[in-house]
Amino acid sequence: MKITDVETIEFKTYSTIHYSRWGYQYDFFGPKYEVISSLTRIITDEDVEGICLGGNKAVTERWIKPLLLGEDPLDREKIWQWMYSLTRWRVNERIIGVIDMALWDLAGKYFNVPVYKLLGGFRDRAKAYASSGPNLGTPEDYADHAEECRKKGYKGYKIHPYIFYDPVKQEPCPDTRTFPEWDIKICKAVRERVGDEMILTFDPWTVGSGGGYSFEEAVWVGRELEKLNFYWFEQPLLEDRIEPYIKLCQELRIPILAPEMSVGSFYTRAEWITRRAADMIRMECGLGGITAVKKCVDVCEAYGVKCELHGGGFEHLHILGATSPKICEWYERGLLGPRFDYEKPRPPLKKICDPMDNDGNVLIPQKPGLGMEIDWDYIEENRLEQCDKP
Amino acid sequence: MKITDVETIEFKTYSTIHYSRWGYQYDFFGPKYEVISSLTRIITDEDVEGICLGGNKAVTERWIKPLLLGEDPLDREKIWQWMYSLTRWRVNERIIGVIDMALWDLAGKYFNVPVYKLLGGFRDRAKAYASSGPNLGTPEDYADHAEECRKKGYKGYKIHPYIFYDPVKQEPCPDTRTFPEWDIKICKAVRERVGDEMILTFDPWTVGSGGGYSFEEAVWVGRELEKLNFYWFEQPLLEDRIEPYIKLCQELRIPILAPEMSVGSFYTRAEWITRRAADMIRMECGLGGITAVKKCVDVCEAYGVKCELHGGGFEHLHILGATSPKICEWYERGLLGPRFDYEKPRPPLKKICDPMDNDGNVLIPQKPGLGMEIDWDYIEENRLEQCDKP
Repeated sequence: MKITDVETIEFKTYSTIHYSRWGYQYDFFGPKYEVISSLTRIITDEDVEGICLGGNKAVTERWIKPLLLGEDPLDREKIWQWMYSLTRWRVNERIIGVIDMALWDLAGKYFNVPVYKLLGGFRDRAKAYASSGPNLGTPEDYADHAEECRKKGYKGYKIHPYIFYDPVKQEPCPDTRTFPEWDIKICKAVRERVGDEMILTFDPWTVGSGGGYSFEEAVWVGRELEKLNFYWFEQPLLEDRIEPYIKLCQELRIPILAPEMSVGSFYTRAEWITRRAADMIRMECGLGGITAVKKCVDVCEAYGVKCELHGGGFEHLHILGATSPKICEWYERGLLGPRFDYEKPRPPLKKICDPMDNDGNVLIPQKPGLGMEIDWDYIEENRLEQCDKP
Repeated sequence: MKITDVETIEFKTYSTIHYSRWGYQYDFFGPKYEVISSLTRIITDEDVEGICLGGNKAVTERWIKPLLLGEDPLDREKIWQWMYSLTRWRVNERIIGVIDMALWDLAGKYFNVPVYKLLGGFRDRAKAYASSGPNLGTPEDYADHAEECRKKGYKGYKIHPYIFYDPVKQEPCPDTRTFPEWDIKICKAVRERVGDEMILTFDPWTVGSGGGYSFEEAVWVGRELEKLNFYWFEQPLLEDRIEPYIKLCQELRIPILAPEMSVGSFYTRAEWITRRAADMIRMECGLGGITAVKKCVDVCEAYGVKCELHGGGFEHLHILGATSPKICEWYERGLLGPRFDYEKPRPPLKKICDPMDNDGNVLIPQKPGLGMEIDWDYIEENRLEQCDKP
């Protein structure tokens, strides 16, 4: 089997995520507006193709297509190593991830099995936590939402607190201002409302260097979370600095979950393990695809460290399907908010990736490949035309 | 697909390996004598089965069969974790390896591709080194053999020196007696004969606690190997003690390759990496199968450490086929000796696993599954009958 073409299709769709002037999302569930999205296809000479949402048209044309044409799409390891040699300058880990996922999708379709069975199956469902949007309103608004999620069967709830957001004025602000007391008010309100049984986790989502909690704020917040019996404290500090993470892991009893944003794929996660900079490791397919996440999971298993996947999606469901819950415990479902219908598929997907059973579990997709069902009519109708200049 | 049966077939075959009273091989290439060998089959309801040489009939019946019956043979990860829960008491890592390899063989046959393409292909051939038998004769005998191997195209040659063997009397002895000066005589004779180009490695194959080199002998041998520009120094000390390995890695410039014998699968190798107890990691499918070796390879890649596979075989060829030579560099071909025709298949195999090209590379098997071709007539003719007592 040979790869005969790789293309990234751009099409119009919509978003509900609203960004402030400081460049970060303050609202995930606002009015719709038009955005350009993309989908990458890997085409072969054997009437089978692999697809993945995402990809950059220019990068596909300039670097990916020449690299892949004529190759066996089952040579994922070689292709991954070739692509990783282009990181930093030509191809980033997110694009590697898209190509790698499309190759896994292709393999699953070629063999007529879901990807997790190719990886080596472990389970057909996995525990999901409801992952809140940030800035959902007052602490009581969060409590209402968490209670609603508990009633839907979720066994876990993750709080994204006030992020790039002033809870007093209820308006966006830069994250050089933080509100740890308000954040803990949310945690207290939610714990009080949902009771002791529900697993609660906390993610202040630190991205800024001058922003996010100071070390002392993170220690204070961590100790409050310990009193409230939270399960993990995620990405509490800027991840470009490892030393404060090592110190924080030593200071706090609550497990620190990181690094989420750091590039360097599974190599960086391996370093965080041996540096003891995190108690649980954060990883996602945006950092090199299924091939990279599987390697990260293997490293985590070797050292007895949890590997919690960042975000949802078909790809992460398959990783969970091929992994023990002792290593990858939770599926992140969301982001969720009271004003948002997560159960409704968003184009170009015909169905959501992660339907739930009545016991708080998501079901691992059983269709061949990743299992995405694409509305190709939608893509054709909304496809961006490339016009030559007259 | 469901597993409907698992059986381990015992049959008579022959061996040429001769053991001294101290329990270790002193000669791999002696006269043939009869031994009992085995093969394990995993049978499904879908007209596809997986096989692997090895397995223990009693263990298969008592523990493996009840564990596997009715399971999807593609659920390798779950089955591996279930089996590993039985290690130490009921099922050892070698048996886990046999079952895991049979499951990979089955998957490859089910999907009609060689196993390395399921893992994610990287290459279709890999560099082989000729791995000498121990106790081949005088240092000049070793030099003759190394030269012969070089002429056949091998780019590397590994010396197994005098092991459980007195080079003066040319007869077996316990390994509480060692002959480091004689061992280095071999190394000098071989280096002198084959020239500077050929990669040479050295493996005194330490198994005893009172036996094998003392720490001081290992340091002396290592320094001599450095002068002779050897590529690695393998398993120089008893592997149950980690501290002397850490010290030896610090003392010597030549890379230390270990641990070969230590149980604990890839978990133990992860520990040796972080303890800096070895410069290169030794692993094999006998320590948990392809699933475990793949995880070990992933850990090694994460930390930039070589993973050199112990011994040959179909399973290791597929690992090499799915891995960069920067991680798994060499295939171990042998053991070889001047009195032994390695190129002739040994029953029940119809063909050897590792034919070579003219440039010192072995070819990755391209048949579906592991690619073994079994002489079933031979097995039937030599099968052990189970008789009920009259």
